[in-house]
Amino acid sequence: MAVKSMNDLFLHTLKDIYYAEKQIYKNLPKMAKSAESPDLKRAFEKHREETEYHIERLETVFGQCGMAPRATRCEAMDGILAEAKDVMAEIEDSQVHDAGMLAAAQTVEHYEIARYGTLIAWADQLAMKQASELLRQTLDEEKKTDQLLTRLAEANINQNVA
Amino acid sequence: MAVKSMNDLFLHTLKDIYYAEKQIYKNLPKMAKSAESPDLKRAFEKHREETEYHIERLETVFGQCGMAPRATRCEAMDGILAEAKDVMAEIEDSQVHDAGMLAAAQTVEHYEIARYGTLIAWADQLAMKQASELLRQTLDEEKKTDQLLTRLAEANINQNVA
Repeated sequence: MAVKSMNDLFLHTLKDIYYAEKQIYKNLPKMAKSAESPDLKRAFEKHREETEYHIERLETVFGQCGMAPRATRCEAMDGILAEAKDVMAEIEDSQVHDAGMLAAAQTVEHYEIARYGTLIAWADQLAMKQASELLRQTLDEEKKTDQLLTRLAEANINQNVA
Repeated sequence: MAVKSMNDLFLHTLKDIYYAEKQIYKNLPKMAKSAESPDLKRAFEKHREETEYHIERLETVFGQCGMAPRATRCEAMDGILAEAKDVMAEIEDSQVHDAGMLAAAQTVEHYEIARYGTLIAWADQLAMKQASELLRQTLDEEKKTDQLLTRLAEANINQNVA
């Protein structure tokens, strides 16, 4: 880990979320393909486009730190995405499948919300104003995605009740 | 996974969060011992007491489903806690150490917030009123813990600035 200062901790966590975003970007097309509901499919496709910007913003922040972008393996995100893969591989019923996908996707979003919240607080402390602003744009998009997923989860449930 | 119905998916996710809560319960004393700030130490100790209730509530919900409590390994929580262990083992500076611990703890809380939110929606769909109420009590406590950790993270930052 080699973390001695707040600056080191910020960079370490930046590498962690950079890895996570890249894994999400890689997995979203499979998730979109696997979704049964057209709305969920579109939500995953839209989120993939956003994730491209999230990755670019992180690369800009690495540049502001005078560093080339680098990813550090994030076991938490690997575990969350492994759960999504289980759902895709093993659940046949379409409503249950989408419910499982939505649950996995909301866990992804909450991981990112926690991480970006922390990074913004540290960027403010380190007087990295531009980094803080870029990370906040992404945080706002992650929160909106989580809200959209909640609405789709409610629609999935209501469809079943009806 | 063997998930064919919403009921199976609910039980699968119940086993996942049961594993997660038990791991958190096991790790919180080490986290409290390792925290430098007395307030953070107390927060971890208090959260351990709450976690005991969270585990009991999950056991009650298993009983309502006519099942003995069972845990399924949750790779996401293992990954999150591995991060906390790295921080404990490797960061010497006290402010940086606590900042890393707070970040890891907030990731734990967000994982739980996502999971309990999902379980409550499914319990409502499955007309499990008592389960839904029990899970909501825990969700409220997890959200309060996350807010407390945010306040402690701000205090940690302000202490450094001063």
